Amino acid sequence: MEKHVEVSMLCQIYGKLLTEKQYEFINDYYNNDLSLSEIAENNNITRQAVRDVIKKGENKLFEYEEKLLIMKKMLKQEKQIQDILVELSKIQETSSDKKIEKILNNIRKELICLN
Amino acid sequence: MEKHVEVSMLCQIYGKLLTEKQYEFINDYYNNDLSLSEIAENNNITRQAVRDVIKKGENKLFEYEEKLLIMKKMLKQEKQIQDILVELSKIQETSSDKKIEKILNNIRKELICLN
Repeated sequence: MEKHVEVSMLCQIYGKLLTEKQYEFINDYYNNDLSLSEIAENNNITRQAVRDVIKKGENKLFEYEEKLLIMKKMLKQEKQIQDILVELSKIQETSSDKKIEKILNNIRKELICLN
Repeated sequence: MEKHVEVSMLCQIYGKLLTEKQYEFINDYYNNDLSLSEIAENNNITRQAVRDVIKKGENKLFEYEEKLLIMKKMLKQEKQIQDILVELSKIQETSSDKKIEKILNNIRKELICLN
């Protein structure tokens, strides 16, 4: 997975365990596409100070994932949900029963909300 | 949810963020059903010291859950999976097609591994 996407996802999961500044700068850098210089200017600090805060926050995020593996589990679940959706379409291909079609649609909706 | 069950589940999710002692004592107390006195004796410390370690560990677990809500999400998913299983049995009731039955069994297996 690309680092950009990985940090962004980890921040969504574990962001509340970061300091306010770490969360804010990681969010600005990875989700709002601000440069280090822009964040530095907005906060009246040096580019290096911004880099340090982000680095420390990233390390914390990677450390939490190494211990709790929540992102890994979520990605595995996403894959499993895709597999189940494929199985559901096999039922739809096999049957033309309108009642079954309706149930399949209900299941699809519930599956999509799962992750 | 009973406190006993709650702490045990939180410890499964966030246990790796506790200190070794906190994890060990919480596990002994909540999962292995040792008393405070037994844990104290096994570790050559006072009953009060055991209670303090457990209390501090529990507070950390509750704090992580308050921020990350992983247990809440897992319980919600469990409920959703049960709902999907009910929908699947409705398909089974509607159809007697052996091919569909086989697909339903595959989906059930995948669903059970999800959480």
